[in-house]
Amino acid sequence: MAITVVGSVAFDSIETPSGRKERCLGGAATYFSLAASFFTDVRVIAVVGEDFGRRQEAVFQARKIDTRGIEHTAGKSFFWEGSYLDNLNEAKTHITDLNVFAAFEPKIPEAYRDSEFLFLANIDPLLQRRVREAMPQAKLVAGDTMNYWIKDHRPALLEVLKGLDVLLINDTEARMLTGKSNLLQAARGVLALGPRTLVVKHGEYGATAFFSDRSFSVKGGSAQSYPFRAPALPLEEVVDPTGAGDSFAGGFFGYLASQPELTPAAFRRAMFYGSVMGSFAVERFGTERLQALSRQEIDDRFMVFRELTHLD
Amino acid sequence: MAITVVGSVAFDSIETPSGRKERCLGGAATYFSLAASFFTDVRVIAVVGEDFGRRQEAVFQARKIDTRGIEHTAGKSFFWEGSYLDNLNEAKTHITDLNVFAAFEPKIPEAYRDSEFLFLANIDPLLQRRVREAMPQAKLVAGDTMNYWIKDHRPALLEVLKGLDVLLINDTEARMLTGKSNLLQAARGVLALGPRTLVVKHGEYGATAFFSDRSFSVKGGSAQSYPFRAPALPLEEVVDPTGAGDSFAGGFFGYLASQPELTPAAFRRAMFYGSVMGSFAVERFGTERLQALSRQEIDDRFMVFRELTHLD
Repeated sequence: MAITVVGSVAFDSIETPSGRKERCLGGAATYFSLAASFFTDVRVIAVVGEDFGRRQEAVFQARKIDTRGIEHTAGKSFFWEGSYLDNLNEAKTHITDLNVFAAFEPKIPEAYRDSEFLFLANIDPLLQRRVREAMPQAKLVAGDTMNYWIKDHRPALLEVLKGLDVLLINDTEARMLTGKSNLLQAARGVLALGPRTLVVKHGEYGATAFFSDRSFSVKGGSAQSYPFRAPALPLEEVVDPTGAGDSFAGGFFGYLASQPELTPAAFRRAMFYGSVMGSFAVERFGTERLQALSRQEIDDRFMVFRELTHLD
Repeated sequence: MAITVVGSVAFDSIETPSGRKERCLGGAATYFSLAASFFTDVRVIAVVGEDFGRRQEAVFQARKIDTRGIEHTAGKSFFWEGSYLDNLNEAKTHITDLNVFAAFEPKIPEAYRDSEFLFLANIDPLLQRRVREAMPQAKLVAGDTMNYWIKDHRPALLEVLKGLDVLLINDTEARMLTGKSNLLQAARGVLALGPRTLVVKHGEYGATAFFSDRSFSVKGGSAQSYPFRAPALPLEEVVDPTGAGDSFAGGFFGYLASQPELTPAAFRRAMFYGSVMGSFAVERFGTERLQALSRQEIDDRFMVFRELTHLD
């Protein structure tokens, strides 16, 4: 089933211990849709400027991603510059130029309206909410957010959380959202805010899913009483961590959308596919690795993740 | 098969966000032997002072741990005082009084000499080496160490590492030992120093085993080419992290020693049992939880860990 994703399409200049790259094609919606495109049809809602040309468009086309919802407007695309020189787990932001994104008014093409899966990438919660309300047919809605919205736009964010089937955030964000440093307590606190399922991403240690008793993954099985943890792959070199979380979300949600039924087993495999896509994303700068990937490589790595965690 | 463990038996005064406890029975050899005693026979080599009396002895007796190798001498037992107020992952040491431990000369009872498993808990590498050489019949030798020995006693430590079948350390120690911040690079660097297998403990994120091509776990299966990761259990409250790593080592090595063959599958289960014992240890102060535990509870939690990580 098709996924519609709303979020940023951007240019990133990135410095890591492995080197520096100027103006990589990036943005949460880009990483998400590339990762999800290996599993299902993906439709993007975003805004770009005049610097987004044929070369960038071709990246989406190569993965058959529907870009009719990417609005082209006068000015420059969202630009971010950051580095990970001291700590690969946390970006240091040097420049954030919102540019055309500052006045972003998501417009949903008619052809997107039958999407049963909706992903609200990390943008202003007011926009997340507006898109959610404009797509009432979406039967499964997942989303992301970040420290900025948690700190300074809490009321709007809380409204979004109430309607989410799955919220995907990292440890720091879960703690910030609840004021609890213990992971399980923080998870309970987040679930109490509305999301039916919470996925906490731990960077190099993988990700954990926590389920409320209203969790969606009960069809064809009993409700999950325990969390579920997917590992990350120990990698020789993390070239560029940018987009790892969005790629996780794309693999996770893309796989879910490809499944005939949302069973607990499908959910678990989706967590593994999320980790798999995150592990590929960081192997090269920007979206380079996701662009060059094959489904066979993805499934091979899925088996490695199984090997990495399973007793037999 | 029986395990002999050499290490500290001590008193700990501990402060955590959950409270404060004075002079808990502690020490690496205590946590290790209590955890391992649920799986196999355990024999302890340590030294204690006059403050180690019948009550402390009874803790070992209740678990049928052989204490003939615990030497009683004039003076006070090893005493440690520390807190985890800011960070449950790292102890802040207030007091370390070596007391009788300062002149510790491990004496190995004749009855211990047929132990096929030997665990060298975190003590002076010179003593670790001496015990290892005095027990040439040990067919599987595992050990632990800490930042102090890595920094200031490196040559002696390197001698010990050469002879280890399994080294169990935490992330920080693996990085300190090799100067590599990337986990996989650090693991490769540690394996190059001699240990045939390396287990890196990640605290609340579990533990990862890395295998060299000389790794022991090849009987009955092919050599492990990928690492293996056991999760930790997300807990509502970590009452006292003291001894979690030693309890992990006890569960891990105790389970291995109980197995007829050292297969890759047995090794994987051992990693899970290690995580299980670590998760129990932190539920109460000192060794309280380990003392009150049953094998049934251990096996029930093993199944929870399976549930937490397995696709089906």
